[in-house]
Amino acid sequence: MIEDLDTELDKVNVEAIIITGQSTSGNPSLTYVCGCNIPRGGLYIKKAGEDPLLIVGDLDIGSAKKGLVKNVLSSSHYNYLQLIQDHGIDEARIRMYDKVLKELGVEKKIILSGMIEAGQAIDITRRLEQQGYEVLAEPDLIERVRRTKSSHELDLIADVANKTEVVVRKTLEMLRNSSVSGDTVQYKQTSLTVSDVKAFINRKLVETNLLAVHDTIFAPGPDGADPHNHGTPERKIKTGIPIVFDIFPQDISSGYCFDTTRTFVIGNASKEIKTMYEDVAVAQQTALDQITAGTDGQVISKSVCEILEKRNHKTPLYYMKHPGMAMEEGFIHGLGHGVGLTIGEMPYLSFTRKSILAEGDVVTVEPGVYYPGKWGIRIEDTVAVEKTGHRNFSTLEKSLELK
Amino acid sequence: MIEDLDTELDKVNVEAIIITGQSTSGNPSLTYVCGCNIPRGGLYIKKAGEDPLLIVGDLDIGSAKKGLVKNVLSSSHYNYLQLIQDHGIDEARIRMYDKVLKELGVEKKIILSGMIEAGQAIDITRRLEQQGYEVLAEPDLIERVRRTKSSHELDLIADVANKTEVVVRKTLEMLRNSSVSGDTVQYKQTSLTVSDVKAFINRKLVETNLLAVHDTIFAPGPDGADPHNHGTPERKIKTGIPIVFDIFPQDISSGYCFDTTRTFVIGNASKEIKTMYEDVAVAQQTALDQITAGTDGQVISKSVCEILEKRNHKTPLYYMKHPGMAMEEGFIHGLGHGVGLTIGEMPYLSFTRKSILAEGDVVTVEPGVYYPGKWGIRIEDTVAVEKTGHRNFSTLEKSLELK
Repeated sequence: MIEDLDTELDKVNVEAIIITGQSTSGNPSLTYVCGCNIPRGGLYIKKAGEDPLLIVGDLDIGSAKKGLVKNVLSSSHYNYLQLIQDHGIDEARIRMYDKVLKELGVEKKIILSGMIEAGQAIDITRRLEQQGYEVLAEPDLIERVRRTKSSHELDLIADVANKTEVVVRKTLEMLRNSSVSGDTVQYKQTSLTVSDVKAFINRKLVETNLLAVHDTIFAPGPDGADPHNHGTPERKIKTGIPIVFDIFPQDISSGYCFDTTRTFVIGNASKEIKTMYEDVAVAQQTALDQITAGTDGQVISKSVCEILEKRNHKTPLYYMKHPGMAMEEGFIHGLGHGVGLTIGEMPYLSFTRKSILAEGDVVTVEPGVYYPGKWGIRIEDTVAVEKTGHRNFSTLEKSLELK
Repeated sequence: MIEDLDTELDKVNVEAIIITGQSTSGNPSLTYVCGCNIPRGGLYIKKAGEDPLLIVGDLDIGSAKKGLVKNVLSSSHYNYLQLIQDHGIDEARIRMYDKVLKELGVEKKIILSGMIEAGQAIDITRRLEQQGYEVLAEPDLIERVRRTKSSHELDLIADVANKTEVVVRKTLEMLRNSSVSGDTVQYKQTSLTVSDVKAFINRKLVETNLLAVHDTIFAPGPDGADPHNHGTPERKIKTGIPIVFDIFPQDISSGYCFDTTRTFVIGNASKEIKTMYEDVAVAQQTALDQITAGTDGQVISKSVCEILEKRNHKTPLYYMKHPGMAMEEGFIHGLGHGVGLTIGEMPYLSFTRKSILAEGDVVTVEPGVYYPGKWGIRIEDTVAVEKTGHRNFSTLEKSLELK
C-alpha cells in the first residue's frame, strides 16, 4: 500500500525516490504514486518521511491535481523551457532534478523509478552521479509497495471483475443462441469466425468502459494449444472442440485490471476432452484450497504439478529434469501472477521461486494443459488473499459444455 | 529505417545493442526491431554488422517467428529456468546476456535499450559492468533509427489515417443528423453528452480495428481550453461553442498510429470564434507550406508564433520573455511531433530546439489557441516529409461550422 512507501525507503536506507515517465499510461509506478492519469507524465519526488512533490507541465496541472499528491508544481516554476533552450533536454532535466533535490535537502542516496527507455535511465543515472548523488539499483521497490492492495483498490478490482464477467456472460449467451450446421457454428445465417466473436467482445468491452490493452484470447482447437495465441481471426467456430476464452481488460477510469479464463466446448465434448478438463479443474481447485496468507506460491505450484503429472501431463517438474528440451506440451507456464494496475506483477506463483502469500495480494490461479495440433484447456480465477483463505473475484461457472 | 541501425551503431562505436522488455506492447523500440507483437517480450541482441538474434520464451516462439528476425531462439536453449532457480531472476538474466554476448564475440562496448523500469535498467547495467562490459548511455539511438519511415511504414500509416478519418466522418455525420432544442443538441430524443459521443466514437474505432490507447479528446467549450482535457463526460453538447475533436488511435495489427484534430461549432459561430479559427487556420497553412526536407522545425515554429502574436495571441515567444509566468492562454504547446509506432517521437517541431526535417519524417502540424473558461481551437494534420514538399495524410475538410 502507498502507506508502506516510507517503510520500503527506510529498508534500503535512501533519502529520496524519483519516479518519472512521459505518461502515466503504461507506467504503473507513476500512476500508482500519483493516483491519477497524467497524459504527459511528470516528475514525482518524495523525500523519505516527507510528503511528495509532483512537477508536471502547465498543461497537466489540472490532471495532476485530481490525484493523491497535494504539492503539485509546474515545471515553469523551474524555468524548464529556458533550461531546455540553454542546455538541451537531457541536461535540463538533470538541472531541474538537482534543484528540487537540493531544495528538499537530499544530499546523496536516491532511487530512480518509472517506465522509461533503458538508455534514458542510464543517462539520468550517470548525470546524477556526476552531480554527486548515489543512485541505488532497486528494480522492484515500487512493485513491492503496489503488491498489497488497500480495501479501496480491492473495490476497484471487484468493479472491473463484475464488468468483465458481464462481457463474458453476454459472449457465451450469444454463442448459446447461435445455431449449428454440421459441425460449424452459425450466427445470423453465416459461419461464425474468431474475428466475429472478437468484434462482439470488443463492442461489449467498449460499452462497459473497459480497454483490452493486450487484446483478448479466444482460441479454438489448435490455437488454444499455444497459451499466447490470441485466436486466428479467420478460424471458424466449430462444435466439440475446446475454446480457450481468456480476457484481461483494464478499466479506463481507474486503471485497474482483471484476468479470467474459461475453456468450453460448444455442444458435446469427447471423453478425452472431458478427462483433461477434469484434470485441470481438480488442479485448480487444489491450488485455490491452499490460497491463504502465509502459504508459499512455490509449494502450491509444485502440488499442482504433482497432480497433473499423476494424470499423465508433463509439467515444469518434468522439464527441469530434461534441460534443453522445449516446453511444448502439458502444463507449460507459471501457476499465477499478481493483478492490479498491470496484468502481471508481484506476487508470482511459480515453481522456480519461493513466494509467501500475504493479506492484500491479488493473484490469478490458472493451471492449464496444452497439446500442439489439438487444443489447450485453462481455467483461471483472480483472488484476493486474506488472513484466512481468500476472496474469489471470479463468479463465472466452470462447466465444459456450453449448451 | 531499420537498415540504418548499423550506421547508428557505427557512429557511437559500439560492438552490440541489446533491446529488451516484458512485452512489445508499449515498447516501440522492441516492436520496431522485432517487426511483430511478442506478448511476453524478449531479448534482441545485434552485433554491429551482423544479423540479429532474438531470444524469447517457448510460448512466444510462434509470435516471434512472424517478425523480421530470422534467428529466433528459445530461452530454454540457455537453460533459463534452471538459471532462475539457481541464481534468482536478476542474476539469471545477466548470465544469459553474458553467454550470448560471449558467443557473439562481443567484448566490451554495448548499448542497452527498450522500455523497462528505470531501476531494472540500472541493475542490468551495473551487473553487466561487473562482467567487464561498458554500457553506453544512448537514450535516443533507436528513436533516431525509427524516425525515418520506409515506404512500407508510410503505407501502414496511410492505412491508419484512412480508418481514422472514417471514424471522424461517421461521428460528424451523427452530429449533423442530430436535432437542436434551444442551444442543446439532441439525438434520439435525449440531450447528447460528451460521454454519448465518445461511446459512439469508441464503437466505430472498434469496428475499424483501431485502439484509442490514450483515449480521444472530444472537448467542448471550457474543456477545450485545456489542451489535455479529454472532455467532461457529463457535459452536454451545445450549439455555437467550439468543440476540439482530437483523435490519435493505434492500429491493433500493425501498431502504427495516426493523429488528427478538427475544431468545429454545431450551428453558427460568433465573430470572435470565426476570427480565432481563422488565426489558427492561417498559422497552420503557413506551417504546412514550409514542410519540406531541409527546413528547421524551430524556424517553422517561430514563424507560427509570430503570426499568432501579430493576431494578439500569447505564444511561447512571449512566455520565454516572462519566465515563471504559467503558460495558460494563447498558443501554449509545441507545433508538432513525430508519429509512427508512438504518437510522440522524433522529430519534434518546437521553438526550443533546432530540428532539420528530413525525407521520411512523419510529423503532426498542430497550432492551437486556448482561452481558459472559454474554449480552445486547434487544427492538426499529420504529414510525411518528402524531398520536395510533403504528403498530407489528413484529407478531412477544415471548416468551422458543422451544418
